[in-house]
Amino acid sequence: MVETVVVEQRISLITLGVSDLRRARSFYEALGWAGAQQPDDEVCFFQAGGMVFGLWTGLAGHGAPGIELAYNVRSPKEVSEVLAEAERAGGSIVRKAAIADWGGTSGSFADPDGYVWEVAHNAGWAIADDGSIRI
Amino acid sequence: MVETVVVEQRISLITLGVSDLRRARSFYEALGWAGAQQPDDEVCFFQAGGMVFGLWTGLAGHGAPGIELAYNVRSPKEVSEVLAEAERAGGSIVRKAAIADWGGTSGSFADPDGYVWEVAHNAGWAIADDGSIRI
Repeated sequence: MVETVVVEQRISLITLGVSDLRRARSFYEALGWAGAQQPDDEVCFFQAGGMVFGLWTGLAGHGAPGIELAYNVRSPKEVSEVLAEAERAGGSIVRKAAIADWGGTSGSFADPDGYVWEVAHNAGWAIADDGSIRI
Repeated sequence: MVETVVVEQRISLITLGVSDLRRARSFYEALGWAGAQQPDDEVCFFQAGGMVFGLWTGLAGHGAPGIELAYNVRSPKEVSEVLAEAERAGGSIVRKAAIADWGGTSGSFADPDGYVWEVAHNAGWAIADDGSIRI
């Protein structure tokens, strides 16, 4: 019997590739956004409603600025399950599930237009029953 | 006395520019996403947690595919107030508040890296006290 994973109807994280993290973070703070978590000098995260909004120099550093979407899951093994489900649905796997340098489990798939979704398990970020995520 | 508008810490809508709406919608439906609202043959919207996920041929049609973020507000006059607040914070106004062809009020600003946020009032989409939005 094939076990089916449910891909919940939600987005966990949107990350903007920025060229100057301090400038980018300052803009959103000047808008009134607060409580950013900045684990290093490359990335910071704001809680944004039930999801997370990230600013990352790593995206801009690898070429043109861009936006990445992520779908976070509740267990490491769910990463590869969601990737398989995306492939079955007609997407393509970009990166297989693997341990990421930040310690979690991560992989990615592309949708038919080429938009890349990271699928990740981050033990430090809690996902509520309703799918909302808290940093 | 200057009235200050609060820019809540949330994102209302993420829209992906797609080249083939039927193909794009079918992929997310094959993932298990349901209940899409498709007002015409150019755009469809999925509820995604407390936000909205859109697929739109209009973005791709105007050049390279891309992703747009939107922040929805609770009244038409709040659109220009949020735009002014973004400008004060160091962003630039891309489109002043105006009545949109879909009937609501809309404008947009760019953040310091050039990412464009639409600021919109759509009377048909309810915004809850916690900032979540329902189509």
